[in-house]
Amino acid sequence: MAAKPTSISARRPRGVAHQPLKIALSNRGDVALFVQIREQIRNLIDRGTLTAGMRLPPVRVLARQLAINQITVAKAYRALVEAGLIDGRRGGGSFVREPSRARSPAQSAGREPTQPMLAERLYELARAPGVIAFSSNYPQVEASCVADFKASLNAVIDNELASCLHYEPPAGRLALREQIAVTLDALGISADENDIVVTSGAQQAIDLSVRALCPPGTPVAIEQPAYYGAINSLRSAQARLLEVPLRDDGMDLDALEHCLARGGARLICTNPTFQNPSGITTSIDKRHAILALARRYGAAILEDDHSPELRFRGGPVPPIRALAGPEDQVIYARGFGKVFLPGIRLGFLLAPPVLRQRLLQAKANADLHCNSIMQEALAHYLALGRYPAILDRMRETYGARQQMLYAAISAGLPDGARINHPDGGLSFWLTLPEDADVSELYFRAVRRGVAFVDGEVFYASQPKARSLRVSFGLNKPEELLEGVERLCSVVQDLQIRRRARNLVLI
Amino acid sequence: MAAKPTSISARRPRGVAHQPLKIALSNRGDVALFVQIREQIRNLIDRGTLTAGMRLPPVRVLARQLAINQITVAKAYRALVEAGLIDGRRGGGSFVREPSRARSPAQSAGREPTQPMLAERLYELARAPGVIAFSSNYPQVEASCVADFKASLNAVIDNELASCLHYEPPAGRLALREQIAVTLDALGISADENDIVVTSGAQQAIDLSVRALCPPGTPVAIEQPAYYGAINSLRSAQARLLEVPLRDDGMDLDALEHCLARGGARLICTNPTFQNPSGITTSIDKRHAILALARRYGAAILEDDHSPELRFRGGPVPPIRALAGPEDQVIYARGFGKVFLPGIRLGFLLAPPVLRQRLLQAKANADLHCNSIMQEALAHYLALGRYPAILDRMRETYGARQQMLYAAISAGLPDGARINHPDGGLSFWLTLPEDADVSELYFRAVRRGVAFVDGEVFYASQPKARSLRVSFGLNKPEELLEGVERLCSVVQDLQIRRRARNLVLI
Repeated sequence: MAAKPTSISARRPRGVAHQPLKIALSNRGDVALFVQIREQIRNLIDRGTLTAGMRLPPVRVLARQLAINQITVAKAYRALVEAGLIDGRRGGGSFVREPSRARSPAQSAGREPTQPMLAERLYELARAPGVIAFSSNYPQVEASCVADFKASLNAVIDNELASCLHYEPPAGRLALREQIAVTLDALGISADENDIVVTSGAQQAIDLSVRALCPPGTPVAIEQPAYYGAINSLRSAQARLLEVPLRDDGMDLDALEHCLARGGARLICTNPTFQNPSGITTSIDKRHAILALARRYGAAILEDDHSPELRFRGGPVPPIRALAGPEDQVIYARGFGKVFLPGIRLGFLLAPPVLRQRLLQAKANADLHCNSIMQEALAHYLALGRYPAILDRMRETYGARQQMLYAAISAGLPDGARINHPDGGLSFWLTLPEDADVSELYFRAVRRGVAFVDGEVFYASQPKARSLRVSFGLNKPEELLEGVERLCSVVQDLQIRRRARNLVLI
Repeated sequence: MAAKPTSISARRPRGVAHQPLKIALSNRGDVALFVQIREQIRNLIDRGTLTAGMRLPPVRVLARQLAINQITVAKAYRALVEAGLIDGRRGGGSFVREPSRARSPAQSAGREPTQPMLAERLYELARAPGVIAFSSNYPQVEASCVADFKASLNAVIDNELASCLHYEPPAGRLALREQIAVTLDALGISADENDIVVTSGAQQAIDLSVRALCPPGTPVAIEQPAYYGAINSLRSAQARLLEVPLRDDGMDLDALEHCLARGGARLICTNPTFQNPSGITTSIDKRHAILALARRYGAAILEDDHSPELRFRGGPVPPIRALAGPEDQVIYARGFGKVFLPGIRLGFLLAPPVLRQRLLQAKANADLHCNSIMQEALAHYLALGRYPAILDRMRETYGARQQMLYAAISAGLPDGARINHPDGGLSFWLTLPEDADVSELYFRAVRRGVAFVDGEVFYASQPKARSLRVSFGLNKPEELLEGVERLCSVVQDLQIRRRARNLVLI
């Protein structure tokens, strides 16, 4: 059959001439007719020929023009509705939807994800020759730590390898859960080993919590800005993200209460200590207040606590989990990569008893259980008891670097740009003047041999941020100041160009 | 405030007296009123006081009786609608829904999952003293294999440990992807390393595929019976499962076409070789036919291929992926646990280029990447090239056991019970007479010192199966016949009781 144009119109007819809808059917029989129609309309939408709000021809019209059965066209339209590409069929016509995430297999591959492989981009950048990459939010592993871990691995290989080559229950090895309980104790959290689920890093702890607690459409309160890994997990679960702006001492409580009371948020995601990316630490008062709000509105809390030990100033603030009672639904999540052993991909979540089974099932669905050899090696390593001394040295090393970098960046930034001064962690959060274009800055910076993380990835909704994260975990000490110089100079150039532009505009 | 009963009625009033709806509000102020109402109604539903189809009192009625604002009650009802617990409010009243999966955090913890921690139950059973557990579908690791893997781990620890302690891109280490391409070549699949994603076992390969391809509500065609790990992943993603009965040579093609044409299935999940649990191998003709149907209806295929090397009889049948062209959307998934190293939690998926980015993003969302040390050790181990000889020995050992077990079980089963004889793999699939109760059999069997896997878990929909999986991967050779004797004797007892019951009934 040849291509037969038919017509489409905008949702509210405004006298615009009808556009032809070009569909060409093949009758070779290897692809069903309704699939051909579905795919061709999908392509027209993907290519932007059909845009949101446009009306498709009525089923009977298209069927007549293509000389086929109405049922075939109706089936194609129904498939497009199910794929989230069009709306309608309540007698009022079929309309192209706003681009959304509810799509079917390959055809939408080109659109998603919204943060296309950030991890890969960061990784490549961090290795590009000549580029000083301020992108690693985790520390360099000490040689002594590598040696200890090597000894632990050897001990497991010599004594327990055969016992590790079996399928196991999802919770993880008891030896590791016991050691995790010890590390939790040091943070003021009294934990039962049975409530601990060993995960593939903090990312999986977050992801399992989201999968266990958030059926599609669940409203979730999340900090603004927030860790992109959490944002991506929530998006992937089709949660409804309600952003709560961060103040200097944590989330804006009025905004949080609004999300709970009006927005119906069922989960609060927070990273209260040295927040990634903002560096903000939620005050003890606010931690109590967040807990009370969660209780009041029957919401759960997911507390992501990446590196509370890396504190350079001030006394420790207890995790929200340490303040919670037995009835509170607080999931505490952390990984061992950010402080102890980057890349080991082990972490855990501490579940409230009422959520334990759901989280275990989520782990079983995700990957059955974590690699046993690594679990035993980490348990052995933690039991050596040498990491507290390593933490002392890390605090000293990175605390000094943070102080030096803070001074250098503060001095080098132009008016209108701001840098925070977190009490710990391995990142700074820079905010540029209101009309700054961070994407533009980013490419100029890379050309000048310095990289950072564009703040955009830390916002669930905002299309354009004017912030950037500067992390110094993996940089060589001798490259730090050179990197700051390059960074500040591109920011200043941007500022100069901005002023020049303003002059022209005036 | 005191408890104030109000009334509820069934959807179609049938003159039944109104039941009181007991809600007691506290005005202490620590929990919002609408949350109290929401939670108490939720509890009434959970306890079964309110059942599907029952009508809740109108908002204004409940508000009057509780002496509170209508907005508060409306808010509670809206929250219950969002949680998927009630329907309605289109002027026609609010009705309790059928139990569904769309629930909010802790409150539904007691209901889900439908297969409560099967992995844990199996694991415990397999270790109960005196019980011969026919439940492990994976082999005993050879001592020489453990020794080789130990050497590989040591090589990585000595030479590459520091380079492994970093965050990495989601695809996995190149060294491992190269070795995976070699193993694929042996199966007739020509693979580009860039299309391989290293995963935490086959379970994660399946789960990532489901997450990447199945937004909630996506119709998916799945074999009946099917691997419970796939069923659970699909359920967790809220896919719509369309079961396709298995014939002796693979899926019923008419039923599959029905799922695609009428059901709109966008994904076909299949385990074509030594299917878990049925042992069935899909014929080469059906593999071609499935591929043609997928192409015709624009569906993707997820091919789970757990242990194609464990063939005891007949020539190899190429994987569907080996038959596919560049335009076909076939994801090939497998783990290294079922044949090489049980419990190592490494596997992979081979993606069609058009789906690669989505699957990588799913991996990044799930857990960033797999542990690098294990990846390098497995790559090193595979490069040693010793596993083909191990496979030869395994085929010999397990082939002989399978033959012996088949003969013993066939001889011991009563009339009306059937056992299949798969061409490979480590399981048998037994089908009992029509009125057999496998759950009952299961508990009797465990009391008699033998365990198997209740076939029920391999069905997405069927409430009661009359099948069981008997796997012999981990049993000691000397316990095999004793186990068969116990198993056949409980099946025979059941048969005798069944006949006796029928006599009484006649």
